[in-house]
Amino acid sequence: MSHVESLEPLPPPKTRRGERTRQKILDAAAREIGQKGFAEAAVSTITAEAGVGQGTFYLYFRSKEDVLRALVLDMGRRLRHHLTLATEKAKSRMEAERRGLIAFLEFARANPNLYRVVEESQFVDPLVHRQYYEDFARSYRAALVAGEKYGEIREGDAEVRAWALMGMAVMLGHRYGLWDPTIPLGPIADAAFDLIARGLEPADAR
Amino acid sequence: MSHVESLEPLPPPKTRRGERTRQKILDAAAREIGQKGFAEAAVSTITAEAGVGQGTFYLYFRSKEDVLRALVLDMGRRLRHHLTLATEKAKSRMEAERRGLIAFLEFARANPNLYRVVEESQFVDPLVHRQYYEDFARSYRAALVAGEKYGEIREGDAEVRAWALMGMAVMLGHRYGLWDPTIPLGPIADAAFDLIARGLEPADAR
Repeated sequence: MSHVESLEPLPPPKTRRGERTRQKILDAAAREIGQKGFAEAAVSTITAEAGVGQGTFYLYFRSKEDVLRALVLDMGRRLRHHLTLATEKAKSRMEAERRGLIAFLEFARANPNLYRVVEESQFVDPLVHRQYYEDFARSYRAALVAGEKYGEIREGDAEVRAWALMGMAVMLGHRYGLWDPTIPLGPIADAAFDLIARGLEPADAR
Repeated sequence: MSHVESLEPLPPPKTRRGERTRQKILDAAAREIGQKGFAEAAVSTITAEAGVGQGTFYLYFRSKEDVLRALVLDMGRRLRHHLTLATEKAKSRMEAERRGLIAFLEFARANPNLYRVVEESQFVDPLVHRQYYEDFARSYRAALVAGEKYGEIREGDAEVRAWALMGMAVMLGHRYGLWDPTIPLGPIADAAFDLIARGLEPADAR
């Protein structure tokens, strides 16, 4: 294209049927981009896999970049929903950390393609990638601040903690969700939770 | 190319001058790939920036993929060297954690292009990317096991801890090294070290 591509997404579908078609395209795009990578992924394969014509694709997305952006937002929404369900009954911040961690690892393992798409988005649209992490960091930080307020966690720098804990989860999701997809996740989450809860330092060193 | 590309790197240069030329190409490639991304990066720009002819490039590297693999290995070596220097005088595992963390953040901030190249390598050559992390995890794990043995850290799962701690550092390097390149790193490292050392849980909850 000779003009600058608009970053505004196209308006959402007005009908249930339109919603379903858009979701079918997104699902096929997650598989295609997640498995082949963005450069090799083809819109023609996405439409063939989704069972729609190329013209239909362009009713919902402006471009391959546009569908990647939509996938990142989609993963954000789905992961947030999944984590909310997993942690809403937790009675303390520590319990929410434990439940959230295993839920995150399960989500990564169940959605390896989406997981890779989010990582690759940094090389396609750095702003959408950064926004994805900043949105998560904001709500994580708020949850940590609330936990401090109620005395459920030690005082500390909620911003640094939020990013550190996200990083831990992301790497463990990669290692045990994507690279090692059969190892039971419970003991992994327990070991990581032990680190998050109590740290490395022996109690008698304090 | 119609044949399968060999993944074996070309033999290393035999002369000092060859070494320097190869390193000039690597430095130019880190800038070009780190700033534009792998797909957009051009060998012709790399050679122009390095001040060598295209023919010279192919004395040292088979392809753009090959130079990316070399950059990942180069980053691994340089980072390992940097971390060894930063931690070799540490008197305990905990002190090594603290020193290593700030050294890592400083390295990320000083080498944003190499940092991005390593991340992008997962979409160009997943094996070299995985190897990079597994090599780090192996030595991290060994250091944690030694720390446990000497009673410097609590007992725990060294494998999960190594990956969790790497993930924490990688995300903080991204957030504070690449995205926020002016904020002082000392307080960030202190806050993250506090989490690593003591965890989130209040002492009276134990």
